[in-house]
Amino acid sequence: MSIWEENVRKVIPYTPGEQPDFPDMIKLNTNENPYPPSPLVKKALEEMELNSMRLYPAPAADALVEELAEAYHVKKEQVFVGVGSDDVLAMAFLTFFNSEKPILFPDITYSFYDVWADLFRIPYEQLPLNEDFAIVPEDYMKENGGIIFPNPNAPTGVEMPFEEVEKIIAYNPESVVIIDEAYVDFGAASVLPLIEKYENLLVVQTTSKSRSMAGMRIGYAFGSEKLIHYLNDAKYSFNSYTMNRPSLVLGSAAIRDQEYFRKITGKIMATREWTKKELKRLGFTFPDSKTNFIFATHEKVQAKELFEALKEQHIFVRYFNKPRIDNYLRITIGTDEQMKKLIDFLEQYL
Amino acid sequence: MSIWEENVRKVIPYTPGEQPDFPDMIKLNTNENPYPPSPLVKKALEEMELNSMRLYPAPAADALVEELAEAYHVKKEQVFVGVGSDDVLAMAFLTFFNSEKPILFPDITYSFYDVWADLFRIPYEQLPLNEDFAIVPEDYMKENGGIIFPNPNAPTGVEMPFEEVEKIIAYNPESVVIIDEAYVDFGAASVLPLIEKYENLLVVQTTSKSRSMAGMRIGYAFGSEKLIHYLNDAKYSFNSYTMNRPSLVLGSAAIRDQEYFRKITGKIMATREWTKKELKRLGFTFPDSKTNFIFATHEKVQAKELFEALKEQHIFVRYFNKPRIDNYLRITIGTDEQMKKLIDFLEQYL
Repeated sequence: MSIWEENVRKVIPYTPGEQPDFPDMIKLNTNENPYPPSPLVKKALEEMELNSMRLYPAPAADALVEELAEAYHVKKEQVFVGVGSDDVLAMAFLTFFNSEKPILFPDITYSFYDVWADLFRIPYEQLPLNEDFAIVPEDYMKENGGIIFPNPNAPTGVEMPFEEVEKIIAYNPESVVIIDEAYVDFGAASVLPLIEKYENLLVVQTTSKSRSMAGMRIGYAFGSEKLIHYLNDAKYSFNSYTMNRPSLVLGSAAIRDQEYFRKITGKIMATREWTKKELKRLGFTFPDSKTNFIFATHEKVQAKELFEALKEQHIFVRYFNKPRIDNYLRITIGTDEQMKKLIDFLEQYL
Repeated sequence: MSIWEENVRKVIPYTPGEQPDFPDMIKLNTNENPYPPSPLVKKALEEMELNSMRLYPAPAADALVEELAEAYHVKKEQVFVGVGSDDVLAMAFLTFFNSEKPILFPDITYSFYDVWADLFRIPYEQLPLNEDFAIVPEDYMKENGGIIFPNPNAPTGVEMPFEEVEKIIAYNPESVVIIDEAYVDFGAASVLPLIEKYENLLVVQTTSKSRSMAGMRIGYAFGSEKLIHYLNDAKYSFNSYTMNRPSLVLGSAAIRDQEYFRKITGKIMATREWTKKELKRLGFTFPDSKTNFIFATHEKVQAKELFEALKEQHIFVRYFNKPRIDNYLRITIGTDEQMKKLIDFLEQYL
């Protein structure tokens, strides 16, 4: 090893879900939305003016921030935006988790949290879910350097009720508490209203799932003006211009179209409920999901085997080879037609 | 101050150049390109397919990386891409500058270097330019935790000859040496060929200036496979999907159109040489610029006064209220017509 390599920050990088690309595939492995973005986004794309691309975008991402403030009834000083919710969360870890006490998050959860903690050398403790795959609120009522968990949790899909989340936040005025609501738009309750009550609460959401914009990389967070100010200061010290012009234009259009948003999320929830019923009929069990995926295990057939069998049919779901969850499949909710094909194949296979 | 605030990473954030917006303005303050992006970019924008926006982009940004590898005759394993060269540089600071020894950079240079060092708590030493605003290569031949400087330097516009840059790199096999070539495409020599010879050399460039894509936020770096691998590992631990779909599509088109690139950079260089002659005639002096800007001072009139007078005419240039350079203006090269208007006004005003 050369001497310069001794000063390299070495990490075990996060492995994104595989991105297969077959014309006939049914892609249910990365929780993408099966429907296209809003027609307003299409219109905004068609009208996008190329000459302005030579100019830097607005560093404060004003157009998008203002659209979010209006849609969510908060002040624009309470909104932060980033290159996907991953960028928002990475910046929040860097900004807020600088205590010597460990930050707390679940053992089974979004697999990026320990990656960020390792990257920034933040001490952490992973708290086990109970046997129903639920987060135990009391576990988060002890000394810590910060708290983060998704609600609903991923990859389990389990929602913690609003009152329980508030109890955790109320117990922890001395730490920043981040609620990662990437999947909240599929029928769960957001704690967004609580940002008025707790200045240390950060609520993170994304356009990737419920607004069909995974390809645009637009995430956002809400918090007290004080919290957002700190986050922006760190962001401006990292990269002043994170949001490119297409993100500002297309992101604003996506947020504006509330009607389309409600229509497609409603559709996905209906498809999810149908899928639950069918999976149950075929001998699957799963925690009740409030997300755009179902985390299911079969009474007889191993998850790994099903994963491989589905893959051969070009039906891609997600399998995690990790303790406690290595007999589960995370199945994204697609269109009715896609889910019917999945169920038909499973029925025949089982 | 609340207790949670004690663990916030506090920084003095970088202040981006002001982004005025008047229909009649002549904007020469942030080194943007006066010409639109390539016609191939326009075509790519028109053909961009919206439905795919619901899907995550390729995490390795393959299309763009491959286009860069082809254009610059390197392997794709020698290419890194990010959300503007700021993102590339921030990630490089985080990845490579973890020594307890100070990193070295000039006292008058891109004003983000000390901001990143402060953000990541990296010790640093700023080495004075000589009286001609040139970097003194010998200063960089001592113990250090890393080296970074722009070539040509900003805001001075001064190029260090290839041989001098190589001397610095050759002296420092124990540190990562970053040459920030944001402005190299306007007539300076790139040290890109040296990545084959020095595995600790990172060469950073951008589409923001020479390819008229400041609004797209696309930067890139070249280095040894080993260096790029470390950088990618850190990047995947921060944000797996940094480049959105429009960046991949439009960025690739911009890199592909070498002919247009040569045409507009050639045009800007010609305009620059004309502007130099005219400024000299009006009593300005400046270090010889190899960039798309000129860093000029007037023999009689204070820079601050000229900056304000130009601003009133909606002609925006950059003024830095900093020691040693507070009597200079950084003037971006615009179109012939814009520069003629600038010179006409200065002639009349002086």
